[in-house]
Amino acid sequence: MSNPGFRYSQRLDLRSGTVDMTHGSGGRAMAQLVEELFVRHFDNELLRQGNDQASFPVEQGRMVMSTDGHVISPLFFPGGDIGSLAVHGTLNDVAMSGAMPLYLSAGFILEEGFPLADLDRIVASMAEASRKAGVPVVTGDTKVVERGKGDGVFITTTGVGTVPMGVNISGDRAQPGDAILVSGSIGNHGVAIMSSRENLEFETTIESDSAALHQLVAEMVAAAPDAIHCLRDPTRGGLATTLNELARQSSVGMHLRESAIPMDEQVMAACELLGLDPLYVANEGKLICICTAESADALLEVMCSHPLGVQSAIIGEVVTDDQGLVQMKTRFGGSRVVDWLAGEPLPRIC
Amino acid sequence: MSNPGFRYSQRLDLRSGTVDMTHGSGGRAMAQLVEELFVRHFDNELLRQGNDQASFPVEQGRMVMSTDGHVISPLFFPGGDIGSLAVHGTLNDVAMSGAMPLYLSAGFILEEGFPLADLDRIVASMAEASRKAGVPVVTGDTKVVERGKGDGVFITTTGVGTVPMGVNISGDRAQPGDAILVSGSIGNHGVAIMSSRENLEFETTIESDSAALHQLVAEMVAAAPDAIHCLRDPTRGGLATTLNELARQSSVGMHLRESAIPMDEQVMAACELLGLDPLYVANEGKLICICTAESADALLEVMCSHPLGVQSAIIGEVVTDDQGLVQMKTRFGGSRVVDWLAGEPLPRIC
Repeated sequence: MSNPGFRYSQRLDLRSGTVDMTHGSGGRAMAQLVEELFVRHFDNELLRQGNDQASFPVEQGRMVMSTDGHVISPLFFPGGDIGSLAVHGTLNDVAMSGAMPLYLSAGFILEEGFPLADLDRIVASMAEASRKAGVPVVTGDTKVVERGKGDGVFITTTGVGTVPMGVNISGDRAQPGDAILVSGSIGNHGVAIMSSRENLEFETTIESDSAALHQLVAEMVAAAPDAIHCLRDPTRGGLATTLNELARQSSVGMHLRESAIPMDEQVMAACELLGLDPLYVANEGKLICICTAESADALLEVMCSHPLGVQSAIIGEVVTDDQGLVQMKTRFGGSRVVDWLAGEPLPRIC
Repeated sequence: MSNPGFRYSQRLDLRSGTVDMTHGSGGRAMAQLVEELFVRHFDNELLRQGNDQASFPVEQGRMVMSTDGHVISPLFFPGGDIGSLAVHGTLNDVAMSGAMPLYLSAGFILEEGFPLADLDRIVASMAEASRKAGVPVVTGDTKVVERGKGDGVFITTTGVGTVPMGVNISGDRAQPGDAILVSGSIGNHGVAIMSSRENLEFETTIESDSAALHQLVAEMVAAAPDAIHCLRDPTRGGLATTLNELARQSSVGMHLRESAIPMDEQVMAACELLGLDPLYVANEGKLICICTAESADALLEVMCSHPLGVQSAIIGEVVTDDQGLVQMKTRFGGSRVVDWLAGEPLPRIC
């Protein structure tokens, strides 16, 4: 936007203004919203070019692309908001291939009447998460739907990244004998959202674990590039469903030890109160790593020495099983099948 | 999804079933929806891998990324539907940099209660548009919101592509003396949508021009790689607003000849009836090309010989103007300023 002579009749009212249908029209009002809100926060060279696409140099190699829609309710929650979540969620999906994320795009679907102050706060948080992660939002889109046809704001982010040479991480590579690791306590995100919906009060607020995991992944990949077979972040459906996905994709079974799975006491207490099984509760800053048994200890050390992996643990191993069952030795010495999530205990959790 | 032993208790009911909250849960119901609906239609190797991201080889060079949310209403319209539109819209944004699109991602936000039969029809249409364009949908995401918090289905697509060596097309490169071309008649998309909303009947149905323009662009770029300065598709806000965007970005003015702008008679008649100015009505299968004056005739020939550009025309030229005004010589010999779209005559047009 190189023309300094271009002026809007008045600045966007970020204090008491609201989104109206003209903000999605493609006309002057939309240009102003993009400029005074989105570009101001996301500020970077590619976005400033003002084209309908961003263009950047790439090296020869393998590239990764991932997309995630975010419809979380409430929009603001302990430990984050839809903006930071939309950045972390997609960065993590890119990173789970072993890739280093490079760029993000963001598509906003706004509901008529949504306060511009809230949008400003969300975009500011998104921009901060993106800066902290070192991955800029380089292109985007804004649409507006009539009141009652949306719910404040939905954000779909897409990320691209590049996979280092020699890294081959995929959900179908788990092998019998492999170790299963998780990068920390489970259930925090889902419980934070549910507690805030139900207005539950605990001694200290349970916060979402929403975080960008690509630096942790980069350190793991650097330490043991060949040894990591699968990485996946246990979001919707939680640890249990994600392990079932991996078991199914790799045609293997899994044996877990319940006592080894890291869980915060407050999260466990809240789960009991809310009638939730923490194994099925969403996480937004945790990863599952499946790697060769020989490398498990070394990888665990790398994970534990990263701020986002201090509570990492080896929680089980991959076994031969044609039926792809995930089984767990309980704290009391029994054994249970850990099935896929059926039904929907936690709607709109991300 | 390599485990053939995995079965759902019953197949997705694509005749009378509806979307429910479990389809967004991350559990078994979502896995089934993805498998029996999305993967079935989009069928390709990358998607079948079943990871949360797609990975593909890239050559060294310049890459382009673009994203677009689609919230069009009605979902089905003469000449297309939200599915084909979501493919064409994003392919075109990628192509307007001179790039050849390679891959698409798709994020769906579904409203509880939406008929699975409609979703199936939309995804089938999307898959057909993607196959026809030669650009596969390689990764995606599905979210579900409660009844009354969405509007059937919103689709956000993101595309990546590569720019051929030596091509440098951007909205800020228009220069005084350049010629302005358009690839065909304007206003068809917006008028098709508005007519179908208002139940207007004409002798023949006005159809949306929704189409993927990347092959047309590839032929133009091959014919005159250095001569093309700007390409942009005049979607929301129409020809008038898009030319104003380009004038502003490049700090130039523009002179148009109204008589040279291709318009279908039926579209003109409908615009009169609906009280619309066709210059501000959205197009989904047209492009504006700004190129050196010397290359204009040669490029026009290339455009006219492509099926999607038969009605192409040179409609004006770029001039020096510090104020960035777009002016038009009317059919009656007068002159008017063609301003940005102000307000919102056509909500949810894409």
